[in-house]
Amino acid sequence: MGVTVAIDCMGGDHGPVVTVPAALAFLRSHPDARAVLVGREEALAPLVSQVASEFGDRLRVRAASEIVEMDEPPANAMRNKKDSSMRVAIDLVKTGEASAAVSAGNTGALMAISRFVLKMLPGIDRPAIATILPTLKGRTYVLDLGANVDCSAEHLLQFGVMGAMLVAAVEHLDRPSVGLLNIGEEEIKGNEVVKQAGELLRASGLNFYGNVEGDDIYKGTTDVVVCDGFVGNVALKTSEGLAQMLATFLRQEFSRNWLTKLMAIVAMPALKGFKFRVDHRRYNGASLLGLRGVVVKSHGSADAYAFEQAIARAAEAAGNRLIERITERMSAMNEVAA
Amino acid sequence: MGVTVAIDCMGGDHGPVVTVPAALAFLRSHPDARAVLVGREEALAPLVSQVASEFGDRLRVRAASEIVEMDEPPANAMRNKKDSSMRVAIDLVKTGEASAAVSAGNTGALMAISRFVLKMLPGIDRPAIATILPTLKGRTYVLDLGANVDCSAEHLLQFGVMGAMLVAAVEHLDRPSVGLLNIGEEEIKGNEVVKQAGELLRASGLNFYGNVEGDDIYKGTTDVVVCDGFVGNVALKTSEGLAQMLATFLRQEFSRNWLTKLMAIVAMPALKGFKFRVDHRRYNGASLLGLRGVVVKSHGSADAYAFEQAIARAAEAAGNRLIERITERMSAMNEVAA
Repeated sequence: MGVTVAIDCMGGDHGPVVTVPAALAFLRSHPDARAVLVGREEALAPLVSQVASEFGDRLRVRAASEIVEMDEPPANAMRNKKDSSMRVAIDLVKTGEASAAVSAGNTGALMAISRFVLKMLPGIDRPAIATILPTLKGRTYVLDLGANVDCSAEHLLQFGVMGAMLVAAVEHLDRPSVGLLNIGEEEIKGNEVVKQAGELLRASGLNFYGNVEGDDIYKGTTDVVVCDGFVGNVALKTSEGLAQMLATFLRQEFSRNWLTKLMAIVAMPALKGFKFRVDHRRYNGASLLGLRGVVVKSHGSADAYAFEQAIARAAEAAGNRLIERITERMSAMNEVAA
Repeated sequence: MGVTVAIDCMGGDHGPVVTVPAALAFLRSHPDARAVLVGREEALAPLVSQVASEFGDRLRVRAASEIVEMDEPPANAMRNKKDSSMRVAIDLVKTGEASAAVSAGNTGALMAISRFVLKMLPGIDRPAIATILPTLKGRTYVLDLGANVDCSAEHLLQFGVMGAMLVAAVEHLDRPSVGLLNIGEEEIKGNEVVKQAGELLRASGLNFYGNVEGDDIYKGTTDVVVCDGFVGNVALKTSEGLAQMLATFLRQEFSRNWLTKLMAIVAMPALKGFKFRVDHRRYNGASLLGLRGVVVKSHGSADAYAFEQAIARAAEAAGNRLIERITERMSAMNEVAA
């Protein structure tokens, strides 16, 4: 039997008009899977009733009366909104009614609620967020992109284990390679924490490649790139800024005058091919790792296509035993250490 | 009278075939300026003799018998190569024969030798490297990109002062805005050091904008972006990797078949306009800041056009009293604090 994904249908910038069509598309392309749509019944029922016969019991609605706002303080969402669509979706993972939860809502609230409801896996101190980036060779998983600043070497080691197990589960790689993000100067290889983390990773039994630099992310040098949440956030946001600037410059050059506009029309097929290859929607769906359950965060502005990718990613991770893989790896590592 | 720039002609991947033509182009476009070409006489003399009459005493050669290798340990270059072109160029700044030095050589060695020969400015603990990046609005100066890992809040404050004074000198801005690179999560605004640095910058009298995120670099939100050397290195290298990946994808899409190759030919003018706007050669020339003298580091692979930009940048900084500006600002700040 396939996996059941609990979908927070009210989260994100668009809510049900995006999340429900995405869920239906996911069910169509995954005939073994099931989905539980969580949210306000009056918003979901009309969208679902039309397709009830198509999916039968593979598609269910679970009512949740509240919504976590995008700018709401996480502590507030956690304490005061026990019937929010986000909370109920995660509760379904906790009770085992669903194998994974997906939300495009408030990241901080999703992290706080997931941690509170699901608890951490043994041996993992903090949850991490792993995102997928396109590379010259395919794709790379980078973590942490969450809120883990001031990390210790042990935290970075745990990120390495979780990232490797994520890639093993969703990309079906036996021994994903793990790189530690560092700086290039030969004389001074990183700060103290990173140096220690390198030693821990080398002794971890993981397929540790060694240090990588910022440009290795997009070269695709390793399957996993490990860094603390501060550095990861800067790397990701800097990339977003650069990509936006380059896209703007390209657009401006092609819309300078009627001649360049004509050039754009002629070159459209090649430009479209380019656009597809770097389409961030294909990489949507960041994994919250270290929890006793699969939780995937979609970008808040995701459209239906992008949100569908996040649901599929959650189903893939749950169907391929992500949580068990992390647990086994951590316990094997701790046995060696003991 | 204009400034005199000491040019390490032997450094970089190409040596005199790039550095000498760049120096001559610089002298042609800066009729007030002078240049001292430093390096092996037998390599420089033939290139200079042809143009001696054109420049008169604006162009001189200073012999230096040794060369610092690109992969040489900095400590070795500093101790054992006292007659290297790099060392002699910096010595000329020390003695006042030149107002600035430029090198495309080994970064670590340039940093170590500059620090040893020129010494630090009062109140500055560590030298920093500031680079220029293109933005949607123009350009932004980012520092540190050197080897300053494990920075304190005071170091970040000093970077802010030095970056602002650099922009004041070379971009002729009265009160350049300074941003502190941080992460976006509302709940957890950065690590402890960055939080403290924010407080120091707020009280510094600089035009402090507040926190910026990675994407603000390329948005051009502030004139200066301050971060520690680890984060800065990752941001810069990640940008290089992304830009290379995007360029590769674009090239691949346009060379897929004869039809897309034709598209590329048609679109060439627009693609060239795009290429010019992001041409990193225009931004060549990173400033080594905090020293008692102007030192500019060119990219090792720079061509003559790129190296000329680095020379011009050094001349601009020296001609606009960069060192005095930093000294005055630091002493004003310390008087307030005292």
